[in-house]
Amino acid sequence: MSDFPKTDLNAVRRLANRGYYDKATIYPIVDEALICHVGFVQDLQPFVIPMIHARLDDTVFLHGAVANRMLTHIAEGNPLCISITLLDGIVFARSVFHHSMNYRSVALFGKGSVIGKDDEKLRALEVISDHVARGRWQEARLPNQREMDTTTVISVQIESASAKIRTGPPNDNPEDYALPVWAGVLPFHLEPLPPVKDPKLPDGTTIPDYITSYRRP
Amino acid sequence: MSDFPKTDLNAVRRLANRGYYDKATIYPIVDEALICHVGFVQDLQPFVIPMIHARLDDTVFLHGAVANRMLTHIAEGNPLCISITLLDGIVFARSVFHHSMNYRSVALFGKGSVIGKDDEKLRALEVISDHVARGRWQEARLPNQREMDTTTVISVQIESASAKIRTGPPNDNPEDYALPVWAGVLPFHLEPLPPVKDPKLPDGTTIPDYITSYRRP
Repeated sequence: MSDFPKTDLNAVRRLANRGYYDKATIYPIVDEALICHVGFVQDLQPFVIPMIHARLDDTVFLHGAVANRMLTHIAEGNPLCISITLLDGIVFARSVFHHSMNYRSVALFGKGSVIGKDDEKLRALEVISDHVARGRWQEARLPNQREMDTTTVISVQIESASAKIRTGPPNDNPEDYALPVWAGVLPFHLEPLPPVKDPKLPDGTTIPDYITSYRRP
Repeated sequence: MSDFPKTDLNAVRRLANRGYYDKATIYPIVDEALICHVGFVQDLQPFVIPMIHARLDDTVFLHGAVANRMLTHIAEGNPLCISITLLDGIVFARSVFHHSMNYRSVALFGKGSVIGKDDEKLRALEVISDHVARGRWQEARLPNQREMDTTTVISVQIESASAKIRTGPPNDNPEDYALPVWAGVLPFHLEPLPPVKDPKLPDGTTIPDYITSYRRP
């Protein structure tokens, strides 16, 4: 897979050694995250909203209700910054100053456009469904025409992107290693808990493996 | 605690019944989240960056390196949207259309200003440290003057805010409840894993309770 050119838009400036511009690093982060934060500008005011996303090649799909004012703004082709963050742990250093987080984050830049054709829209919805839970699309009732008509699906071509990643133990000042302070990483994991069935579910309805054994790619 | 007035800025428009404007709902979400996504505008381009935050009364603190260009922009008092999202689960409905997420999200609006005085800056850093791991400030080496001088701490007065929350089982169409499709919620939890000690840590260094029994408020 190729790299994104490093430009003013996507350059990781602070701690530049944590910056990555290759799709092979960026896209697995996009695919692992369940949600993203979409930033856009209206009348010079920034807005950031959490959304479900999914990626197909160099495209990210977003979706929502047709009546959604913010989605309409996104659909009009205004510039977007899509931020995706996986929190991997708290880095406990001997000094307050060197405390940090371990994380894998991505910034994607592009513009949205509405997917007009129903077959392309349905395909994008399948990609989103697969992103959240592969196997579900084959089992749940698929969208009917009314549902298709009330759903907007946005396609965002990824024009520029970068990742910023921190891993590993703390980096303390040499003289601080002698301090009697525990140091290391407290890792985090977005852990699925036991599924909670809908109270209205008939007894005996089989729960599929993709839910009981859920995990992110 | 009081409410934020509902305005054009913070109004939850889609699914307005999921919107909340009271601090008693909004602030616990801010306090539970380990990170936030800060949105700002430079030359009409939106940027969103993940940052550690902490709240004290109606103020949010952000911090970073003095040389950080984006932090400088934030410090200049440009409008910000700080988005905070806690992902609580995937909602599996009988129809693809009614799939959803359970979440607690907040949007905070305000402008940043640099904390100039060292004593106020140190207090803000303590609030940030307490936000991440209460007890750490009393144990780690506190910032020296050089570290203070290379750290920018930003104070953002929360001018407007709202929360959007979804909880509970799926809401399917009446006719879909007869479908033989498992429905319910797969809850998620940001789970701390066993701490990983710094390879350079001397044997026998005691690990504190606030790390072994880590949990969010």
